Amino acid sequence: MSNLKTAVERYFAAWNAQDAEALRKAVAEAWTEDGTYTDPMADVRGHDQLAATIAAVHEQFPGFEFRMTGEVDGHHHTARFTWDLVSTADGSSPAAGFDVITLAGDGRIASVLGFLDRVPGA
Amino acid sequence: MSNLKTAVERYFAAWNAQDAEALRKAVAEAWTEDGTYTDPMADVRGHDQLAATIAAVHEQFPGFEFRMTGEVDGHHHTARFTWDLVSTADGSSPAAGFDVITLAGDGRIASVLGFLDRVPGA
Repeated sequence: MSNLKTAVERYFAAWNAQDAEALRKAVAEAWTEDGTYTDPMADVRGHDQLAATIAAVHEQFPGFEFRMTGEVDGHHHTARFTWDLVSTADGSSPAAGFDVITLAGDGRIASVLGFLDRVPGA
Repeated sequence: MSNLKTAVERYFAAWNAQDAEALRKAVAEAWTEDGTYTDPMADVRGHDQLAATIAAVHEQFPGFEFRMTGEVDGHHHTARFTWDLVSTADGSSPAAGFDVITLAGDGRIASVLGFLDRVPGA
């Protein structure tokens, strides 16, 4: 489980990176070179596309961060966990979701399959 | 979504196949030749291993079937859904779980990542 928990920590570090350079570095630490991320709005592969996808979300939700809710439930090379998108100013949370990751042999993420449990305006 | 729903139907047909020949056929319809299934107890690849894994569960739970609960939540080439393992005799359900599938280009399942939400004795 420890490699799965570490991977999840690196994943949230990427989603919460504060600037472009930190994001680039965090994405490279979290995902393999050909790692993927697929959610209802995005289906991307590789560090450049991954960083661009996260940067676009940061532009859409300035002042928000992604926080894991509950625990990492993992086995073999896969884990599931849930998250809230939270305003650092007032704690409001317009969105929540659920991700399943798979790890490559080097402990970095090979794929993320993401689903939304709560969305803005719903 | 229709290809995802069809894939999920074929997946449950495999889990609920009534004999070895029906199971072999249902597995081949549901998964690609090198398709995978990973849950806390199993991490297998290919039709032979998939059929053996399902047959072992049938031996452990005779007279039970897998029933989807809720709806298929899918996008791109992936979907999530939940299931109960239900006794066809008395409707009792000793186990429940959650799966995420990915599809190959031919509409068959490339991978299943499975997690347990309720287990016997818990």
